[in-house]
Formats: sequence, C-alpha cells, structure tokens
Amino acid sequence: MKEERIKIAIVGYGNVGRGVHKAIEKNPDTTLVGIMTRRPKEVARETHNADIFSFDSKDYRHFGLCNLDVAVLCGGSKNDLPQQGPFFARYFNTVDSFDTHANIPTYFAKMDEIAKANNHISIISAGWDPGTFSLERVLADAFIPEAKHYTFWGVGVSQGHSDAARQVRGVKDARSYTIPIKEALEKVRIGENPDLTARQKHKRLVYVVAEENADLTRIDEEIRTMPNYFADYNTEVRFITEEEMKKNHSKYPHAGFVFASGKTGEGNKALIEYRCEWQSNPEATGNILVACARAAYRLRKEGKSGAFTMLDIPPAYLSPHSKEELLKSFM
Amino acid sequence: MKEERIKIAIVGYGNVGRGVHKAIEKNPDTTLVGIMTRRPKEVARETHNADIFSFDSKDYRHFGLCNLDVAVLCGGSKNDLPQQGPFFARYFNTVDSFDTHANIPTYFAKMDEIAKANNHISIISAGWDPGTFSLERVLADAFIPEAKHYTFWGVGVSQGHSDAARQVRGVKDARSYTIPIKEALEKVRIGENPDLTARQKHKRLVYVVAEENADLTRIDEEIRTMPNYFADYNTEVRFITEEEMKKNHSKYPHAGFVFASGKTGEGNKALIEYRCEWQSNPEATGNILVACARAAYRLRKEGKSGAFTMLDIPPAYLSPHSKEELLKSFM
Repeated sequence: MKEERIKIAIVGYGNVGRGVHKAIEKNPDTTLVGIMTRRPKEVARETHNADIFSFDSKDYRHFGLCNLDVAVLCGGSKNDLPQQGPFFARYFNTVDSFDTHANIPTYFAKMDEIAKANNHISIISAGWDPGTFSLERVLADAFIPEAKHYTFWGVGVSQGHSDAARQVRGVKDARSYTIPIKEALEKVRIGENPDLTARQKHKRLVYVVAEENADLTRIDEEIRTMPNYFADYNTEVRFITEEEMKKNHSKYPHAGFVFASGKTGEGNKALIEYRCEWQSNPEATGNILVACARAAYRLRKEGKSGAFTMLDIPPAYLSPHSKEELLKSFM
Repeated sequence: MKEERIKIAIVGYGNVGRGVHKAIEKNPDTTLVGIMTRRPKEVARETHNADIFSFDSKDYRHFGLCNLDVAVLCGGSKNDLPQQGPFFARYFNTVDSFDTHANIPTYFAKMDEIAKANNHISIISAGWDPGTFSLERVLADAFIPEAKHYTFWGVGVSQGHSDAARQVRGVKDARSYTIPIKEALEKVRIGENPDLTARQKHKRLVYVVAEENADLTRIDEEIRTMPNYFADYNTEVRFITEEEMKKNHSKYPHAGFVFASGKTGEGNKALIEYRCEWQSNPEATGNILVACARAAYRLRKEGKSGAFTMLDIPPAYLSPHSKEELLKSFM
C-alpha cells in the first residue's frame, strides 16, 4: 500500500511499550516517532531513532511536536490508563489495552466523550483479552445463536496474580501460571457443553522465591487461600531459587481458548474454537496495539471520532494490505 | 435490542435457503417475509408464514411488495449468483455466499457498482469460506506480521467435488469427503511451519453409488485421475448401495482450520488457530448469512451503500446484542 507511514508514539516504555516498539519494526507502514517514559535516560540508552520525552518534566508540548498520528498508551490499567487515557485523548488519537473488564463501559464512555470533543479516535481495550478474544466471542455468538460460550486462559503467566503473590510477606519474587484443566477443555471441545466452576476450568501454579528464613508454610497457606486471586482455584506453590526464577521464568508466555458450542437447525452440532499461543504476552499485545493504531489512523482519516473497541472496527482496517490484495488473496 | 424486526426474504430455496430459514427462527430480531423459488408449490407445502414467489412467473414486483429489508441470495455461485446478484442488487439490499474465490474481485466490483447506483448494501461471499475463514486469515495476518498461513478443510463433504464425481459415466450418486491429513495439521499446530503441497494437506474419500452393471474399475480410475478435482490428491473411491448413501451420507457436515504461525520480536513463538465444525454446512452458511443480513440492514440505516465483504463490517454489526451489552458482557 503506497501511503505515508503512520507515525506512532509510545507512552510508557515497560514490557508492553517494548512490545509495541518491536511490532512497529515488523510493520513497514508504521514508524516510531517518540517515546514518553518515566526513565528517559535508561530508555535513551536502550532505543534508537526515537525522541525520548519525560513524564516528569511535563514534556507534553514537545511530545506533540513530533507530529504523531497515534499515541499508543502502554501503561497499566489500574493506575496509569485511568489518568493517561483521558489526558492524551484530548491531544492525540490513542490506542490502549485497558483490561479491567468490569470498568470497560465506564472507561469507554469517558474516552468517547473526550475523543469526540477533540475530534480524535481512541481505541480502547485492544489486547488479546480484552481484544482479540472479545472479537471472537462476539463473532462466534453471532454465527451460532444460543451457543454456550467458554473462555480458557493459559498455559501462561498472569501478571495480576504474580503481583498479588508478591504482596505476601516473605515473598521476594513470584510468578503465577494459569493452567486450563485438560479434562474440562476436552469436554467443551467435543461439544458436551458442561457447566464449569472457576475451579473446574483452571488451576494455578505459583513459583515463589522466598526471603531468607521466611516461613514457607505460612507463605504457601497465605497464597493458596488469598480471596479473589487463589482461593477459588486449586493452587500449588513451588519454592525455587532466584537463579531458577531468572533462568526458567523470565519470559511472559500466554495462551488461551475461546469456544462457542451449540446447534444449528433441529440439532446439528456447531462448534467454533479459537486458540492463541504467545511466547511473549507483551509482544502479542504490542502487535495487536500496532494493528489497532493503523485502524485508528484510517478511521480518523475518514472523519470519524470517538471511542472504539475492536468490535467497532472493520477488520480490513487492521490489515497492512490493500483492499485489492485482500479481495484477491485473503478471501 | 428494541427495534423493529429485520425483514428478510430468501431467494432460492435449496439446502442453503432452508438453512437461512432455520437461522431466522433462531434470531428473534429477524423475520422471514418471502421466498422466491423455482418450485413454488413444493416450497409452499414445506414452509409456513412466508409468501412464496416464483422465478418462472417473473413475480419480481410482487416480491418487492413484501417490503423486505434484505434479500438473502441462496443460489449457486456458478450459474445463479452471477445473474441473480446484479439483478437483485438493483432492487434490494442483498447478502450472498458467492464462493468462486478466483472471481471474487470481479463479482465485488460489479455488485459494488450496482449497489452504489441504487443506494443498496450488497454483502458478498458471506459463508464460512469465503467468509468467516477470510476474516480469520486477515485478523491473524494483521496480528502476526510475517506469519505463515494455512487453511485446512474437513472432515466434510465438498459439494463441488461430489458434483464432479457424479459427472462420471456410470455414477448414480456420489459424495466426496475432504479430509485434512493429521500429520500435516500437527506439524502446523506445533509451529513447525512446513511447506505443504495440496497432496500433503488433504486427501479425498469418495462414496459412489454405481449404476447397474457399470464398470467399477473404470469409474474408480476416472474419478481418481480427474484433473483439478481429484488428481492432485490421494483419492480413495468406495462403492456403496443407495441405501447406505441415504442412511450415512445425507447430512452435509463440514469443518476446517485456519492457522497463522510466526514470531514476535526476536523469535518468540506466536500462533493463532481457528477451527469450526459444522454438522450441517448449509445451516452454517444460513447462520452466517443471517448475521450478515443484520449487518446489511444496519449499514444501510446509517446511509452507507455499495458492496461489502465480511472484512468491511464492524463485527458488532453482526451481533444481535446492543452496544451496551457487548461492552458489558463480551469484552
């Protein structure tokens, strides 16, 4: 497609920010024009070809001067995005991966109001869940009315659960894996449509580096019984050394499944299964954010404004290929 | 969603037309207002709650009087749709499942011109392939740049191949199954990214009812060596009785897989797998056509016109659920 490159800036240069950076390099129709970070010196050493701006110095005006098309907001959903989303939507088209499911309607409404008032596009909740999985749930539900739906996550690291385990006294580091339970998965896959509790769908495995002389029995107990995070699952805690943690658990893989299982007509089986497997969760999110940045750029070009989720975007807008190429080679 | 029901008419009442009829019954926001068929008397006996119109009597004006929102064109891609598509796009919003992949760009251009000139929406090639599989290919390609793509079909009945086998002299009836080759599928699934020929991806199994005293050896040979259809595959022909055909092969199941397999960043595995399994292929197509009829209705309501594929439709438009419900329960 012969058009100017889409100028992307990254706000927040953690794991997801780095994932976006790598994704931009794999998408020849995009280019990185700036990074805003709390650690400008470190990031300047780490990156090339991008202007570095600091959150601390309130460097926002200069950031705007890099003439960006889309700001990809890579902060966390708990503390960063609730502030940064509404702030940046005033000045730029934005894309983020806001993932606190329960707060999506409120966040959407707020972003929609600000983006509309300022003639910007703000694509929210664009990751793999929420994001691609949301999309697959909606598609499968539309194609198999009255189907039963299942989402399984894993095998993969859950950041939220890892953080929770790290809050336990005596825990130096922790990595919590979500593991779908095979028997449940297989029942769904063959169309049995079982009713499943949280415990029947997933188990959790937590690797912990304990502080010296910590009470391992208490840590094990506290993690396994922690409400909201671990109590509803069969959870196993394994203590390992710092070296093991670094060697075997420094990547952030994730995977998951979306199923819709039902009938067509008078009782003919209908089943849709979507599965993803990402050895790097933040890079997966980065890839999806960049595809959505492309869509934001195109939506804005045709005069639209306001908040969007991936449910509102014509899929072709996510693609680097021209309409002609899509009709010819992808249909 | 509180809105008037979408008034759908069916053009062509074969297997797919019946599938659409059943799908309408499962989608409470849609209603069947008319059927156009070459066999009006038979269809009148078979159906209820719908006005029946005949192709033969050039009953088109009366058909228009049923005040339909969308005409779902259920004819075949070879002989029916190339005429019926452009004809009906002049008078109505249309949805079809035109599936001659090589001719999609030409068909799209023609439908686009007519639909635009008459302020209609025409959604073309909406089935499961082309259709949902096209969608999944484009999404996966956007989310994993540089990925290798694979589509497998089966286990399922191929109508085109069954028809081809029926053309052989001495064949009374035939049903051709497409079967994906497990070893190839598994290699793709674990991310090996193999290069695969047609023969390495699929095999074909053809059940044949032969005419009395027909030369079975010749039939077997002629089917297995038929160019374009069977010669490129390992094909097995099995002769069965008419009773067996009726008993075991009267459903039209189909299934398939779309894979994208690649890397993110500096070499982290990324894999997306989409699988569908439909015990009734025509009912599957019916379901997808009705979801697209809903989208056509909505696109037209917001003033759009022209031809669309499923790549051009915001996924939320396919869904029976309101925007609020989607944000709350599907994200």
